[in-house]
Amino acid sequence: MDTILRNPQLDADGDLHHLLSIEELPREIIERILATADGFIGVGTREVKSVPLLRGRSVFNLFFENSTRTRTTFEIAAKRLSADVYNLNIAASSTSKGESLLDTIDNLTAMQADIFVVRHSQGGAPYLIARHLAPHVHVVNAGDGRHAHPTQALLDLYTIRHYKGRFEDLNVAIVGDVLHSRVARSDIHGLLSMGVRELRVVGPLTLLPTGLEGLGVQVHTRLEDGIRDADVIIMLRLQNERMRGALLPSAQEYFRNYGLTPHTLRHARPDCIVMHPGPMNRGIEIDSAVADGPHSVILPQVSFGIAVRMAVLSMVVSSQRKAS
Amino acid sequence: MDTILRNPQLDADGDLHHLLSIEELPREIIERILATADGFIGVGTREVKSVPLLRGRSVFNLFFENSTRTRTTFEIAAKRLSADVYNLNIAASSTSKGESLLDTIDNLTAMQADIFVVRHSQGGAPYLIARHLAPHVHVVNAGDGRHAHPTQALLDLYTIRHYKGRFEDLNVAIVGDVLHSRVARSDIHGLLSMGVRELRVVGPLTLLPTGLEGLGVQVHTRLEDGIRDADVIIMLRLQNERMRGALLPSAQEYFRNYGLTPHTLRHARPDCIVMHPGPMNRGIEIDSAVADGPHSVILPQVSFGIAVRMAVLSMVVSSQRKAS
Amino acid sequence: MDTILRNPQLDADGDLHHLLSIEELPREIIERILATADGFIGVGTREVKSVPLLRGRSVFNLFFENSTRTRTTFEIAAKRLSADVYNLNIAASSTSKGESLLDTIDNLTAMQADIFVVRHSQGGAPYLIARHLAPHVHVVNAGDGRHAHPTQALLDLYTIRHYKGRFEDLNVAIVGDVLHSRVARSDIHGLLSMGVRELRVVGPLTLLPTGLEGLGVQVHTRLEDGIRDADVIIMLRLQNERMRGALLPSAQEYFRNYGLTPHTLRHARPDCIVMHPGPMNRGIEIDSAVADGPHSVILPQVSFGIAVRMAVLSMVVSSQRKAS
Repeated sequence: MDTILRNPQLDADGDLHHLLSIEELPREIIERILATADGFIGVGTREVKSVPLLRGRSVFNLFFENSTRTRTTFEIAAKRLSADVYNLNIAASSTSKGESLLDTIDNLTAMQADIFVVRHSQGGAPYLIARHLAPHVHVVNAGDGRHAHPTQALLDLYTIRHYKGRFEDLNVAIVGDVLHSRVARSDIHGLLSMGVRELRVVGPLTLLPTGLEGLGVQVHTRLEDGIRDADVIIMLRLQNERMRGALLPSAQEYFRNYGLTPHTLRHARPDCIVMHPGPMNRGIEIDSAVADGPHSVILPQVSFGIAVRMAVLSMVVSSQRKAS
Repeated sequence: MDTILRNPQLDADGDLHHLLSIEELPREIIERILATADGFIGVGTREVKSVPLLRGRSVFNLFFENSTRTRTTFEIAAKRLSADVYNLNIAASSTSKGESLLDTIDNLTAMQADIFVVRHSQGGAPYLIARHLAPHVHVVNAGDGRHAHPTQALLDLYTIRHYKGRFEDLNVAIVGDVLHSRVARSDIHGLLSMGVRELRVVGPLTLLPTGLEGLGVQVHTRLEDGIRDADVIIMLRLQNERMRGALLPSAQEYFRNYGLTPHTLRHARPDCIVMHPGPMNRGIEIDSAVADGPHSVILPQVSFGIAVRMAVLSMVVSSQRKAS
Repeated sequence: MDTILRNPQLDADGDLHHLLSIEELPREIIERILATADGFIGVGTREVKSVPLLRGRSVFNLFFENSTRTRTTFEIAAKRLSADVYNLNIAASSTSKGESLLDTIDNLTAMQADIFVVRHSQGGAPYLIARHLAPHVHVVNAGDGRHAHPTQALLDLYTIRHYKGRFEDLNVAIVGDVLHSRVARSDIHGLLSMGVRELRVVGPLTLLPTGLEGLGVQVHTRLEDGIRDADVIIMLRLQNERMRGALLPSAQEYFRNYGLTPHTLRHARPDCIVMHPGPMNRGIEIDSAVADGPHSVILPQVSFGIAVRMAVLSMVVSSQRKAS
């Protein structure tokens, strides 16, 4: 196969080699990740919460952008697979001494890293790393700029499949600051891949990207219209900087128009589920009565996230094992 | 048993479920913790310093207030019990993104935490967490505001019992900034529970709380009087902010009046022991000749602290095991 | 043997007890470290990258000066030996509360530390600690002020021996800011111990120490002269503060005179190797065409560094085992 045209996320056999983005990830691979995660769901509730799949492997958490939550979920996932985990606080390290990103990667590879879990404020950084790595080393994107957050999208898909079954029957609404959200971008690609019946984005025009209609996505500026008969509602976090910025009048007005409350939730289907990637702004994008209410699956998302990350880490290493 | 009236630290069988405070902890539970710690004393001096009691369990060190020393002792205790330990630097995490304390706890619980070790600048935070937790998850207070520091008090009790035996025969003096010290508060409750013969607090009036006499505690403002015939002297750390504050004239004058020196120590019993929770201010609350002298048991306190924390962690999980 | 005259790095049998400096380390011990490292080279490339030599032992990384890279290499080395590793962020800890260095050490020793890996901005700090420690605890210097960085020198010696064999046949040049470099100091002592044919230091006079000629080291201020017929070139990192300081006109002029390029490299032997302790300033002390070129062994240095640190950690603990 031509290595120039080949999907950089897959190896020559079409197996998952890096996880960079949901975009361009074949539906079959997504389904394999979800099925693999199924097998890991039980591990977290056992008394001994580990399996030896990555024993002796080295997973480096490279967080150029701080995120205790996501870093911790990857650390847990890697430890449950019995890997050695190294957390690198990059802000305080060599990059501040002027070392380039790829020199840092080369050095850690020379320390026999097996997997890099990378979060970076610049979109595309994990691709740059993937192109640079030797064939036996892997990169998993833990969020790059506004570009992608593929493990969040995968755990969202896992959650939807868990509660709702077949994607083809579902109306899904993504509500909030879609424009600046890497979660939204990755969710949109994943939900389109899985063939949901209707996919809608909902928010003020200033926070919605253009060109979505061409992908078959419906655009709504009224919350009630956007979530009407929805089976799944994915609420997005409103970044603090937006609340004070020129794009929005105020957090209070945002909540009045786009905050999900028990009242507005009545427009959705009676058995709809409500999701949120966290951390939530209660009283801004979501009312506490909804966040803690019977439709909310926000905390199960977190648990499923561990299993999904275990699936991704173990699958890329299987690709390694085969290569070597 | 009525769950409203029930002690939140104990389960329905009266076993230790959370450790929140020494206050309201039955003497029998304190003695069980000390006896359990006895069994762990040897572990630290063996060549292989671990036992498998918490294998596969997840202990989250949630330090909302920085303390490398206490955090490290809990990390060591948990690792010696073979637990997986996750250190969360909360200042740099979701709370700075505006997430509430209980949302953080819910998220980590969804990642299958078994025990939270919590330090927080606000008194009562561990109680808030304990009330919120699912029954199979536990919280251990590692210091909350000026309220309590129960594992420090337990290791102090362990140390006293180790060197002095029966509490009923002992005169114990706590010297220094009792007013602002959570260690002093917890020590006072613990020592009263264990029934020491005489308990005295010693310091300038501006640094002593009121109302202690009602508990049977003697109050002294002259060091020589306070430590006269003492079997045990617990020195408290003088916080830097006090030295510069309105409550004290100067660090020099404090040392002249309340610093423990070989000279003043002669007022205590010849076989008395001197304790300090650390970190010490040499030359301010304690003279180096005392800190490093034959009466000092300050470093054994640290070693005993590991065993006591192992006891607490293993006992709350036993309560879990029974519950499930 | 007289304990005052005895080398503090060796125990009574002449075995490695602490690693403080390459200076005064007998050649025979250096060779034993390199030979021991040979046995660990394979561990990093196995699927399971660990051996049980330090199982249950506690290694404390005490970094009073931040260095993610060196701290991570020691963490990897200790974990591959199955030790429990504790990373202490000292800047944010007790020393900021005014505790003395030796009180911190005493406390951690009371937590049953086996080895301290210490980086400190003050030269001599590891010696101070070594003199203070109980006989069953060990210190490894991970860089102290401008004084020494012995594990870097050992991995440099390992690298040279790996690629070049006998030291007695080699011309070695150390290029750059020799004056302020603890790496250069330790390399000079190590290379002299191993008996290289010619050892040269190369740089502007303002960045070269005086008195080296007395040790048999050649001093050069022209790069071409200094690296002529060199078998090994060790490039030093130019600290940012030098570039802006009074000692150098500018980074550009430094590169023009002392930057290693494919052009200047022609003065060295055709099979010479180029080394750098990292992190590199590309375009300042080294051209990318050299850093990434066929003479560069900069990344193998990193891999060898893990094995060398495993050798040091396991050897000092063998000395412990014998003592107890």
